Formats: sequence, C-alpha cells, structure tokens
Amino acid sequence: MNSRNIFKYVFSNIKSVHARSFGSKPDFTKNTFNIERGFYNYLQEPHLKYFQQLLGEQRVVTDLSDLEKYNVDWFLQMRGSSGIVLKPKTTEEVSKILEFCNTNKLAVCPQGGNTSVCGGSIPIFDEVIVSMELMNQIINIDENSGAITCQAGVVLETLDNAVADKNLIVPLDLGAKGSCQIGGNVATNAGGIRLLRYGSLHGSILGLEIVKANGSVLNLLKSLRKDNSGFHLKNLFIGSEGTLGIITKVVVQCAPRPKSRLVSFLGLQNYDKVLKTFKKARSELAEILSAVEVMDDKTIQFGQEFCNVTSPIGDYPYYLLIEVAGSNEEHDNDKFHSFLDSALKENFVLNGTIAAEPQKIQSIWAVREKIPEGFRKCGWAGMYDFSLPLKNFFTMVEDTESFLKKRVESVFGFGHLGDGNLHLNVITKHYDERVKKIVDGFVTKRVLELGGSVSAEHGLGFLKSRYLPVVNSPESFHLMKDLKKLLDPNRILNPYKLFP
Amino acid sequence: MNSRNIFKYVFSNIKSVHARSFGSKPDFTKNTFNIERGFYNYLQEPHLKYFQQLLGEQRVVTDLSDLEKYNVDWFLQMRGSSGIVLKPKTTEEVSKILEFCNTNKLAVCPQGGNTSVCGGSIPIFDEVIVSMELMNQIINIDENSGAITCQAGVVLETLDNAVADKNLIVPLDLGAKGSCQIGGNVATNAGGIRLLRYGSLHGSILGLEIVKANGSVLNLLKSLRKDNSGFHLKNLFIGSEGTLGIITKVVVQCAPRPKSRLVSFLGLQNYDKVLKTFKKARSELAEILSAVEVMDDKTIQFGQEFCNVTSPIGDYPYYLLIEVAGSNEEHDNDKFHSFLDSALKENFVLNGTIAAEPQKIQSIWAVREKIPEGFRKCGWAGMYDFSLPLKNFFTMVEDTESFLKKRVESVFGFGHLGDGNLHLNVITKHYDERVKKIVDGFVTKRVLELGGSVSAEHGLGFLKSRYLPVVNSPESFHLMKDLKKLLDPNRILNPYKLFP
Repeated sequence: MNSRNIFKYVFSNIKSVHARSFGSKPDFTKNTFNIERGFYNYLQEPHLKYFQQLLGEQRVVTDLSDLEKYNVDWFLQMRGSSGIVLKPKTTEEVSKILEFCNTNKLAVCPQGGNTSVCGGSIPIFDEVIVSMELMNQIINIDENSGAITCQAGVVLETLDNAVADKNLIVPLDLGAKGSCQIGGNVATNAGGIRLLRYGSLHGSILGLEIVKANGSVLNLLKSLRKDNSGFHLKNLFIGSEGTLGIITKVVVQCAPRPKSRLVSFLGLQNYDKVLKTFKKARSELAEILSAVEVMDDKTIQFGQEFCNVTSPIGDYPYYLLIEVAGSNEEHDNDKFHSFLDSALKENFVLNGTIAAEPQKIQSIWAVREKIPEGFRKCGWAGMYDFSLPLKNFFTMVEDTESFLKKRVESVFGFGHLGDGNLHLNVITKHYDERVKKIVDGFVTKRVLELGGSVSAEHGLGFLKSRYLPVVNSPESFHLMKDLKKLLDPNRILNPYKLFP
Repeated sequence: MNSRNIFKYVFSNIKSVHARSFGSKPDFTKNTFNIERGFYNYLQEPHLKYFQQLLGEQRVVTDLSDLEKYNVDWFLQMRGSSGIVLKPKTTEEVSKILEFCNTNKLAVCPQGGNTSVCGGSIPIFDEVIVSMELMNQIINIDENSGAITCQAGVVLETLDNAVADKNLIVPLDLGAKGSCQIGGNVATNAGGIRLLRYGSLHGSILGLEIVKANGSVLNLLKSLRKDNSGFHLKNLFIGSEGTLGIITKVVVQCAPRPKSRLVSFLGLQNYDKVLKTFKKARSELAEILSAVEVMDDKTIQFGQEFCNVTSPIGDYPYYLLIEVAGSNEEHDNDKFHSFLDSALKENFVLNGTIAAEPQKIQSIWAVREKIPEGFRKCGWAGMYDFSLPLKNFFTMVEDTESFLKKRVESVFGFGHLGDGNLHLNVITKHYDERVKKIVDGFVTKRVLELGGSVSAEHGLGFLKSRYLPVVNSPESFHLMKDLKKLLDPNRILNPYKLFP
C-alpha cells in the first residue's frame, strides 16, 4: 500500500463488506444509529508501519476477509468498520500499542471473545481493534490457595479445564464459556449461572494487571485473599467495560471442585410456587445449591421452534432448573431427593426429573443454554438483561406482554432466579425501528419502576450506553465522568461505549 | 463558653487528660510520632454554634470526660486531642457536617466502633470526630433475596442477631463483633474468620450510601445481586478507610444461616502437617468448611499467661481450630468425623476434640478470640497483620524469632489459615522505641520478600500509613493520590491516615 492515507483503503473495503453482506449481516452501526465519529485521527500509513514493526506483519490484520469476524458481533446486531486488528502477545506490546494510540489520538476497541450482547466489544467506526486472543497463557496455579494467574485472553472454558485436575473450579460459568475470555469477563463483571454459589467477580478476582490509556502498566497482581494496603484499585476496572484500561493479566481465586453434581428440571403451576420452591431450596439445599434457573412456557415454545430443544417433562406454565453440587454424592442425593419429595408433596412442584449422569445433566442444561442461539434465527429479538426484586420478576414479563399485545410475535422471560437476573425477550418477525423504540421505552421505564436495573450482567456496552445518566444519580454520573477523564483523558479507550 | 476561640479550651482540656492518664494511657500520638499538624483551621466558637444548632447540644460532645473514649483506641496505642464529637442520626446531618467542615477547612475523623488495630479511627490532632454510633437503624430485611439495608452505625453483632430469626447470617464475623460497626467494617474491608466461606465484602456488599467530603450524597444503594450499569463506584469506598467519604448506609447480601455447627480443636506436630490437614479439609469438607484458624504453641502460652485460656487437649507445637457449618447436622457430623478419623489415622493430627454444643463451641472459640485481650496487659505488643502465601506462613514467624532472639519476650503467630492471614505478634516487657523500630523494619522487609502483604485485613490506618508508597507501585500510588484529590481536594477526611 503506497497511499499516505490508508483510510481510503479501509473505507473502500468496508463498503464492499456492506454490499456483500446485504440482507444477511447487520447494517453499519454508525448508520443505524446515526452517530457522529469522535475527533480521532484516521489510521495512516506510518501508524500501520509502527504496528507492523512492533508485532510483525502476521499479527497485524488488515485483510478484508480476516477483519470480518472482528467487526461483527455474535448476535449479528452490530457492525463496525475497523480496518485493523492488532494481536499482542505480551503486556509490553499492549503498553506500546496504547502509548502510541494515545500519542496519535487513535481510538481503540479492546476485544476479548467478542461475545458481548450489547455491542461492548465491536468498533463503531474505524477504531483500532486490540484483540486479546493470543494473550492466552496460564502463568501459575497455586494448589495451596487455589489462586490462578493467567493472561487476559484465556478462554473461560480452557481455564476451567486447566484447573479441573487440581480439584479446582473457576467460580464463573456462562453460556458463552467456549468463546468468551477471562479478561472480557472481568471487564464486564460477568455474572453467569453460578453467581448464587460463588458470588461476583469483585469477590473472586484477587489481582489484575492493567495497561492504562497512556500505556503505563498498573501492576495490581496480588494473589492474596486478604490485602488491605491502600485503595482497592483493581475493583475500579472490574465492570469498566474496557473504558478505563485494558486488562492484561488476571488472578482468580478458584473454589474446590465439586465431586458430585445433580440437576433437576421441574414443572410448576405459577410464579408464586416458583418463589416458594426457590425459598425452600435456599433453606434446605443451602451450601450445595449451585444454580437456580427459571423459564416460562413461552421460552420453551421459542426453544422448540428455533433451537431444537423440548421440555423433558411435558408442558407447564413455569419451569425450574435446580443444580446442586457438593463433596459427597450420597449426602447430596439424600438432601436433593428429600427436598424434591417434600416440594412435590407440598404441591409446590407438579412434576420433575433428576439427572445424575453427566450426559443427562448436559442435555437438561442444553434446554436453558441453547435459547440464545435462537436469537440469530428468529427475525428480530429484543434481548433485555434486567435485575429485579424477586417479587417483581415475572410482573415485568407480564406487563411487557400486556402492553405490547399484538405488536410483537412473542414475549418471554427466563433467567438466573437465584440472582434476581431476568432475561426478557421480545420477538418480532422483522426488525422494525418503530416497534423497537416502543419496546425499549416501555421496558426501561417499567424495570426502573419495579426497582430493577437495566443491566444485570451484560453491561451497557454501546446499545445501552444512553442509560448511563438515566439510571445513575447525577452525582454518580459525574463521578464516573471524572474517573474516565482521570484515566483516559483523550478518550481513546472503547469510545461510544458505556458513556452516551 | 464565651471565648471566641475555643481552641484554648480544647487545649487546656487535653493537657489535663494527658496529666491525669500518665502512666496508664498512651502518650499523645502527635508527640510520640513527632508529626506536624496539617493546615486546617482550628475549631472556633461559631463552628461549635453551628454544630449545636444542627444537632442539638446533646449530640455535640465537648465534655472532657465524655471525649476520653473517642480519643483513645481500644488497644491503648494511640491518643488524639479532639475537643469535639458529633453524633449525627441521619445522612442529611452527615452531609451538612461535611459541607460545613469542607467550607471551613476543618479536619474530620470518622469513627465507627473505634476497634481499629492501626489507629484508623482515632484523631491525631484536633480533628472533628464524627461518631456514627447513633446511625444505628436497620432499614429493611428482604427475606426473598437475603439483602439487608441499614445505617452504617449498626453494631455487627446486632445486625447478625437481627437477621438470625429470618434464617440469615451476616457474611462477616470477627472478634470485635460486639463493638465494631458495619460501616467501619466496610470502610476497612474487614475480613474476619469466615472470609474463607463467604468471601470478601467486595462480593457481599450490594450497595452503599456515601457522603463525600463536600457534603454531597452519593446514592449507590442498590440491593440487586447483579447490576452492571456503569462503573462500580461502591467498590472504591470499600477499604478506603474513611479517606474518600463517610459511609452512611450499607446493603449487605446475607447467606442462609447454617442449621448445624461443629468445631474441633486439633494438636499437630509441625507446620507441614498443618498444611496437609488444611488441604484435606478443603477437599473433604469443601462446602461446609466455615473457618480454619491456626495457632502455634507460644500463642497458647501467651493466652495462659494473660487471657486465662488453655488448650483443651494438652500441649502441641501447632493447633488448628476447624469449624464446619451446614444445613444437615447428620451429614455434617458424618463428613466431619470421617475427615478427622482419617486425619488421625494418616498421622496428620495427633489429638483433637469436637464440640457440637453451643457452649462448648463458644469455649473453644474463646481460646482463639480472647488472645487480643492480652495485648492490653502484656507490656508492649507489636501486632502485625500479614497476608502470606501459605507455604511461607510460619517461615515468617520463625524468621522473626531467629532475628530478634533475646531482644524480646516472645514471638508468636496465629491467624486465619484458610485466608492466608497471619497475625504475627512480638511481645516486650515495656515499650521501647528502638526495639519497635528494629522489629518494624525487619518484619516489613521480610513479609515483602516472602510474597506477602503488610496489611491483610486491618488496613493501614495511621500506624502503617508510611507503607502506602512502599508496598504499592509508583503507578498505583499516584492513582491513589489522584483519587484522593478528586474526591477530597481539601484533604479534610481522616487526615494522617492511609496516606503518609
């Protein structure tokens, strides 16, 4: 490329991407949302040269077909137009990249496994994508304490597999575990299905290494469970969605790996029984309770239509998936069966099945975990990730359905009941801007009225960034802006995300 | 009082405190440490009038004998010379106090239960003490989710008692529970004896309300387990030791209260066996393991001499106190006995006793929990609160002992083995500045060499503030200073603490 300005190259490439994928891929996000590009510099030939010199040509991606997967998200909701992906292998390389981008006012989009549901990991314009996929080394497993240290790009499932034979378990599990990376998990404070058991990442992340926007490295790599020797800086970066720094290394406190695991799938009459069963489970299963997932009948109907899943116990208005995991199979079995027997006897539960075999356990979990795959096939899915007080959990679903009535195909809810985390979904045959606005407007207003949060575990990313000043008090919002200014004064890190 | 300047009054009072308590109470910290007062204004008559008007005369303490307990710490290590204690009852009052102090450049010392081990809650000069003791209302207990909301001044034990009949347990327990307040616990990120089971406060605190230095109120009072809708501001205040804001309300996620509890007290041959027993416990007792405390023989000897406690099983080089707590007494008993039988058979453990009766459980815990009372009676105690990788836990104690040899009376270690938290103690007959410096210098250097932290759970407070720039990287230290500047530009909040 001998042009001084490679922007033209990027732009012409992008137009062709757009043309080629018409109909099957999302339109450019910048067009759909009609937003303005920030005052960043455009990528020039000397910039490219610098990156190629730093990383070698192999780790600087500019080829159109290779760029595709970094510019489009998994849910096919968003499309960026970045012309460059950088693949550092070390903290020092990330540091040099950011120092250079900061000096040259180039916007940066940090990218982990690119499984964000709200466009947190996708460039909006031509941001330089820093992919963490090659920073995938596990550095240390301390068998005494259960603390593991690794680079940020390790895939969650890989990490969990690596500690399994040390009798440890990574205290985070989510549907995207085969693709998402631990660094991205930390950046979004991912919650997942076992938060109920192991708590949030604020509790289980012991240390972080972060590269700040100006390239300086913040070494917060402690691996001690207790450490009160100054402000707890690492927590500032947990859930900051790549806007305050790039996480390069992570220390995770693992838990003892359960030796026994049992899963049941239950059918229930109404939400009142769901709540009663949950309270009973929390009290009787207590320390072995590992996950409590809820689904309504329409979730299963959607699953049947789009994801090839069916209820293993016939049709009921509500379903609960309850998992227990412990250190003694006989005791766990005993507790679980006695809980279920009495839940049936008390008429809390109408029907149920228990799985102890790994394969059957997996097939029950698949009923719940495959649902998101349908969102890529069903027309248009408005996917909302809300936290709600438990008493209002399905009030939210019912109110949305009553309000929307015939305007949409289906409204259904499932989620992590144990953590008060509802995934509310609104399905239409085709994307309709007008309908989307109506849905967005209603559910946001309603979830706040019901005492909930507009983002439980997905974060705000790009798609929900407009809520930042709405759901936080002016005081909080100003403090967030001040923190952003302090850590990234040129606003090069993940622009258009989190902040409106 | 008709003098325009009440400083004279304060000063004369303080001199008399000093004189009266000579020999039995610590000297003024400002003298002992020979530090300079910051450029704050002195309390004047109009200031006093303002506070009296705001709170009423009853809640503005200026009487000498009443001031005493707020100016001296529980461990009799520190003495401040504050002439005023304010006792707000509401957030609005705290807000008005801070706004006024900030405008008038009056330094403020926030005070909870005043149980800090490192002088975090004691004024150094004449700071205005804001005591949280009247902010002791429990606001809400959500039985569905287990989230409780209360004012910051609720005593930890009171809070736990209040949730006990809802079958919930506050996920924090420490020796000082009868005096310490939940707000102070959060401000210091207290760890305690059940961190192993319930994780750190970063995981279990769901929401906070904070009054910033300028009096503005930061409402972060969420009670949802999952909430990713902006930076996680509350975590910035957890462990900030009163230097960034005053915590006024707290939302805590409680856990299901265990229905059964068993405690054993074991005698072991050496530290290698201690470690082996711990690993075995973590694997076999897993989800019911609730606390693992370790003590060496000299800890028990110290206990016998100063605290009237003895080992219930005779003398051994090391002792372990292991607690399990669960939902099914029969299962827990079964697991615990089978673990202990095999630990005895494998020769990990030499002797042991198990308690299931509440009274016997309490008397076993007393062996461990009464030790700190001896520090008030023994002459001088250098109390160090370190985190260490488990392999180096007692290396630290042994190295300190070899280094100090005959210079001191005794060196011993006990602590929360399950969390890698060692309480190292050095006892001398009398306070000796020279010896103290030698001890301080050695242990700090050694703990860092051994990969530990100079403060596991006590924080830095005043006594360890000089370590802030030593144990944190320059990058981290600068960021901490920037955060302080952002949130408290006039540095009125808890001066001389945390920052050197």
